[in-house]
Amino acid sequence: MYMALALEEARAAGAEGEAPVGAVVVCDGAVVARARNARESAADPTAHAELIAIRQAAERLGRWRLSDCTLYVTLEPCPMCAGALVNARIDRLVYGAYDPKAGAVGTLMDLSSDERLNHRFAVTAGVLERECSAVLTEFFRGLRERQKVGG
Amino acid sequence: MYMALALEEARAAGAEGEAPVGAVVVCDGAVVARARNARESAADPTAHAELIAIRQAAERLGRWRLSDCTLYVTLEPCPMCAGALVNARIDRLVYGAYDPKAGAVGTLMDLSSDERLNHRFAVTAGVLERECSAVLTEFFRGLRERQKVGG
Repeated sequence: MYMALALEEARAAGAEGEAPVGAVVVCDGAVVARARNARESAADPTAHAELIAIRQAAERLGRWRLSDCTLYVTLEPCPMCAGALVNARIDRLVYGAYDPKAGAVGTLMDLSSDERLNHRFAVTAGVLERECSAVLTEFFRGLRERQKVGG
Repeated sequence: MYMALALEEARAAGAEGEAPVGAVVVCDGAVVARARNARESAADPTAHAELIAIRQAAERLGRWRLSDCTLYVTLEPCPMCAGALVNARIDRLVYGAYDPKAGAVGTLMDLSSDERLNHRFAVTAGVLERECSAVLTEFFRGLRERQKVGG
């Protein structure tokens, strides 16, 4: 179950003090990338789980076109990551939790089906939604509690 | 003139067989990043000039927030790159040519001023537009001519 792998990555990110989001890229039934959010530790605003996973998959496969790949991610992609999926010509996206703040594949906008762009991809949303969402809720609750203790 | 530097990068990309787009990041009057499109040579769908420049600037400055930086780029950013500018909390974007196919900062959509996202940035469009646009037109004309000769 690929979303369970993405969730493992998300939990590992949370343990590292990063907002817990994880992603996996699958090609022909094989996992070719697994990555987690690393914005703080890498001090890189582009180091979202999806973007790292896309780059890793392209590196493994030796090509920028991921038209035979599926990306699994625990949280709905932001505009940057949804745009990267278009650029990578991804075949399919599967995501867990919806993102009311920055979701660009159904919530605030939908970059997966914009007919003006040169690629569209299939989307399955809400897979293991409760678990993917709980990991985020618990992380941010913990942050707020530590801030209260600290302040 | 920072756009002239970005144009130099664009021309270097073209000479390398890449769609000629160049970008520069400026912070406190200093150039902290200069980059060019490298999608084919890096076999990386995310290797647009802007994304590389943002990552390079963050690495140089040792932080993911680029809220005191301006990015200059020869072509209007695509959704991925415009989303990366939001994520980087960029202060300002200056671009040259408009992109009718994928422009996400004014043409197809405008990610710089979406009030639902957690950051907005200032935009100056059309700087050295003629030169920025000519570099692209000549590159693609050359490609078509070589394809005709080859075919």
